[in-house]
Amino acid sequence: MYRHPLSGLTMATVLGLAHLTAHAAPVQIKAPAELPAKATLADVIKASKPSDWRALDPDNTLYLDIPAGRVVIELAPDFAPKHVANIKALVDEQYYDGLAITRAQDNWVAQWGDPNEKNPKPIQHAQRTLPGEFTVPLKNIKSFTRLPDVDGYAPQVGHSNGFPSARDPKTGTAWLTHCYATVGVGRDSASDSGGGTELYAVIGQSPRHLDRDITVVGRVVSGMPLLSTLPRGTAPMGFYDSPEKNVPIKSIRLAASVPPEQRSNLEVMRTDSAAYQAVLEAQRHRGGPWSKVTAGHVDLCNAPIPVREVGK
Amino acid sequence: MYRHPLSGLTMATVLGLAHLTAHAAPVQIKAPAELPAKATLADVIKASKPSDWRALDPDNTLYLDIPAGRVVIELAPDFAPKHVANIKALVDEQYYDGLAITRAQDNWVAQWGDPNEKNPKPIQHAQRTLPGEFTVPLKNIKSFTRLPDVDGYAPQVGHSNGFPSARDPKTGTAWLTHCYATVGVGRDSASDSGGGTELYAVIGQSPRHLDRDITVVGRVVSGMPLLSTLPRGTAPMGFYDSPEKNVPIKSIRLAASVPPEQRSNLEVMRTDSAAYQAVLEAQRHRGGPWSKVTAGHVDLCNAPIPVREVGK
Repeated sequence: MYRHPLSGLTMATVLGLAHLTAHAAPVQIKAPAELPAKATLADVIKASKPSDWRALDPDNTLYLDIPAGRVVIELAPDFAPKHVANIKALVDEQYYDGLAITRAQDNWVAQWGDPNEKNPKPIQHAQRTLPGEFTVPLKNIKSFTRLPDVDGYAPQVGHSNGFPSARDPKTGTAWLTHCYATVGVGRDSASDSGGGTELYAVIGQSPRHLDRDITVVGRVVSGMPLLSTLPRGTAPMGFYDSPEKNVPIKSIRLAASVPPEQRSNLEVMRTDSAAYQAVLEAQRHRGGPWSKVTAGHVDLCNAPIPVREVGK
Repeated sequence: MYRHPLSGLTMATVLGLAHLTAHAAPVQIKAPAELPAKATLADVIKASKPSDWRALDPDNTLYLDIPAGRVVIELAPDFAPKHVANIKALVDEQYYDGLAITRAQDNWVAQWGDPNEKNPKPIQHAQRTLPGEFTVPLKNIKSFTRLPDVDGYAPQVGHSNGFPSARDPKTGTAWLTHCYATVGVGRDSASDSGGGTELYAVIGQSPRHLDRDITVVGRVVSGMPLLSTLPRGTAPMGFYDSPEKNVPIKSIRLAASVPPEQRSNLEVMRTDSAAYQAVLEAQRHRGGPWSKVTAGHVDLCNAPIPVREVGK
């Protein structure tokens, strides 16, 4: 919503308002006061120290390669240990290679898996289904940096090692939340009907009402535009209406199994760092000159998690 | 995240878990209890009465026609009377025709306007800039159906004639909120530097921190995929890095000025109807068999606003 950053136009030329006022309700408009300048997200990133960042763990990083490029997914074994292990087992036996993205529903999800349900691809060593891991015991989650901001979906929200998460001390449970880029496990009605053969990534407004209702295994840290710009499917629920429209998966690989020179060298800002608190503050209280009001709040899924490429 | 709806597979085959358990933390998993079935969004729409719907007002509906199709925008004159009048004046003089979508930033906005800033297209009768209409007096907004659910960005949120909106009784102001599909007015740093020559639509997670900081003029009610699937720009802020990548605007027309047989005949569910309360309830408390937990909350920007095409 900013105008073109290269704009050299002066916009001060205010023309007579007479003919417009005739159409408009008599609203009194006064220019908002100017806010003092504050550190922006870009400023915070620029001022950050190397220790504010962590490299992705190659043993918990997936590369989803499609013809348009690479999507990098960070897995969260603390929150879905059996599903993450199973997905890694599926990757190890190259289960996903040659399957396809079969669904892209606007403001909802892109989903991939086996397009040939009548004659499904055999699984060698991994599991086809597992009991759902919709929540985990709170005590399993060692790191949690809580947001002070109110949330309507959970008693407590914040970040656990870079993942938006929530928890409920009353039930003693913790879970990953559905935000833009969250990756989860498709399932049928039964809670044990998914296992990782179908995965989805959120490409729209965070569907937080799915939290605790499905197994979340991680998030896309790079390459979201490759999923978010996919043509939307026109069959029910955004599935593609013919096999030709499916987007083929070249491969899914664990970063650790890819030669180092072919890896994506990404770092994620540590969400338990002081720098990340400054990121949140930059979002919560934006300063002038552009901003005229400060929100005073940051929603969990509106909290940016900076990612950078290193070594290039 | 649902599996393929045409799936005929039985998923009950549970293989031995021994080799997986070896990799996984010792988490106790129990299947969640089944929820009773409840009316879904589709059920509510099916059960709705004609009086639960309203036709779009041709005098406040824009057709943004690009090569890929038509985007339908409903304007909200109550919330931005001068800007809506000015945008309609710009449309009337065919200002936008031949301009372009120049920006698509992932999880943020698509934006359109004049790509030729050095030699800008002249404006005949409308204004180039106006004082911002970031909020309006609360008394100007006659219709407001408040959500009971907590919101972090505003004291009160709900819907005003189909638009997600908020208000603050203390300051006596009301405003449209930034949700997916919200349309607003690009501006420079000065609050009076926009006027409607640059417009944007939200294509990602709702950037609610922009509320009250920019003039919102309406929302896209049909055609969002034409904007949300645009290739993301690679120049700063998601602008396209060369003019060839801009997406040309064939025209923007007011529905009232288009022959009836060429109009998009859309109806929007009335957000002050009992049917819409049932929509919210279906989102707030999803039932079985698929859902295992109920969110007990609906976020303003997660509240779907049903739109349907009629007469075809």
